[in-house]
Amino acid sequence: MGPVTRARVRRHPGGEPDEDSVVTEEPLEIRVEGRPLAVTMRTPGHDRELAAGFLYTEGLIDGPDDLTALARVRDPLDPQDNTLDARLAAGVRADEGRFQSAQRAFYASSSCGICGKATIANILRGAPPLERPLRAPPSLLVTLPQAMREAQSAFDRTGGLHAAALFDLEGRLEVLREDVGRHNAVDKVLGWRLLEDRAPVDDRVLVVSGRAGFEVVQKALVARVPVLAAVGAPSSLAVQLAAEAGMQLVGFLRDGRFNEYLSPG
Amino acid sequence: MGPVTRARVRRHPGGEPDEDSVVTEEPLEIRVEGRPLAVTMRTPGHDRELAAGFLYTEGLIDGPDDLTALARVRDPLDPQDNTLDARLAAGVRADEGRFQSAQRAFYASSSCGICGKATIANILRGAPPLERPLRAPPSLLVTLPQAMREAQSAFDRTGGLHAAALFDLEGRLEVLREDVGRHNAVDKVLGWRLLEDRAPVDDRVLVVSGRAGFEVVQKALVARVPVLAAVGAPSSLAVQLAAEAGMQLVGFLRDGRFNEYLSPG
Repeated sequence: MGPVTRARVRRHPGGEPDEDSVVTEEPLEIRVEGRPLAVTMRTPGHDRELAAGFLYTEGLIDGPDDLTALARVRDPLDPQDNTLDARLAAGVRADEGRFQSAQRAFYASSSCGICGKATIANILRGAPPLERPLRAPPSLLVTLPQAMREAQSAFDRTGGLHAAALFDLEGRLEVLREDVGRHNAVDKVLGWRLLEDRAPVDDRVLVVSGRAGFEVVQKALVARVPVLAAVGAPSSLAVQLAAEAGMQLVGFLRDGRFNEYLSPG
Repeated sequence: MGPVTRARVRRHPGGEPDEDSVVTEEPLEIRVEGRPLAVTMRTPGHDRELAAGFLYTEGLIDGPDDLTALARVRDPLDPQDNTLDARLAAGVRADEGRFQSAQRAFYASSSCGICGKATIANILRGAPPLERPLRAPPSLLVTLPQAMREAQSAFDRTGGLHAAALFDLEGRLEVLREDVGRHNAVDKVLGWRLLEDRAPVDDRVLVVSGRAGFEVVQKALVARVPVLAAVGAPSSLAVQLAAEAGMQLVGFLRDGRFNEYLSPG
């Protein structure tokens, strides 16, 4: 199943019957050592990258060596091949409980309660602040949205896809992925780097077509991304985590303009 | 903490130091009978509605009578009051396992595997198709985005909030809520109805400011909403679920135009 599906519609005003292209959404089940770990609603395509990126940015694996195999589960009950199984290196397997603590980092330290500050403290325990990270100059940043837009394949047809892309500091596009889910698009590009045996991703600018919430900053930080640039708005917790992690956070990057978010006010 | 937080920025081009308003994002922990059920990253405000709506649309409770109490947990380790505890009616309590099956409906029937079709079949088992649902005429639908926009309080300042709103079939706004998370905004309006003791929501049009993915249609269906209208794009699985559930699904509702999605093509 491709990234675009046909649908029967009536177009208004007028109510003419017609066909429209919509973004494909299908579940993907990620298993670890045969046990179901998570189901994500995603746009089919680059599924291994998505699963690898998910395991990486959720803290279950630290790098490519932790992943010994990642393969489709062949099952007559799953005719669309929507299941992937990951095999982990021996030392990693014992640490499977890390997933729980990554997904619900709030509980990692019961003594600090639940609030944004505690959430950030827990994230930074697993992924410490960046050391001497790269910075992207304004002249480079303003060129990236157009470069990303030109590389997007399916957006113009469906209007329903989020994109994430990695650029080097010369402004060259390295990889772009699209998905119905914002976080999936980020996992796909970071997972691509991992499967290419080139993680951490400490030499690239990550551009996202939508908003920069806390979880996008978290995923970027785990992969050691030094610069996160969003076409849309950031959230308060995204600003706070980026500031404490030493990440350059850019928002509203469009039409030759952007804001660089430095710290909570 | 309010829905808007200040941040220190540099505005480019130019790099002038300035302040900006960003949408507030903080974790909310939802407990049931004292046990942690879920943590969602949300914009503070209307938290009881969010928690009630979440319990409702995720299938843990069927209506207001199932919820006997919903209160803040007073805890010195949680100074921002980010924890709510729900008490359920006696008959409901035993059914707590329903949450697991609602969240991961994919596993409800192990014989049908994992794919969009199986996902929809499982949803429809818990929330059957709508019977003789209402339909919104085109002349009404085209008026709703502007009415919603005028009622949005924080969007213009942050650009980071999603909105969801309920309208009656005369086009009158009943309730509007905003949140950094799309699904949270939907849970807040549906939870408001539940706490008002007026669920199911089978007499209203639900309008969302963003996209209509599978999970938004699922939440609307559980609450028995007959018409879902999105300013953004729908996904393939959203179209399929709405068609099978008998829900009127509208996408790209803006500038006096929209598409009504009838069925997969």
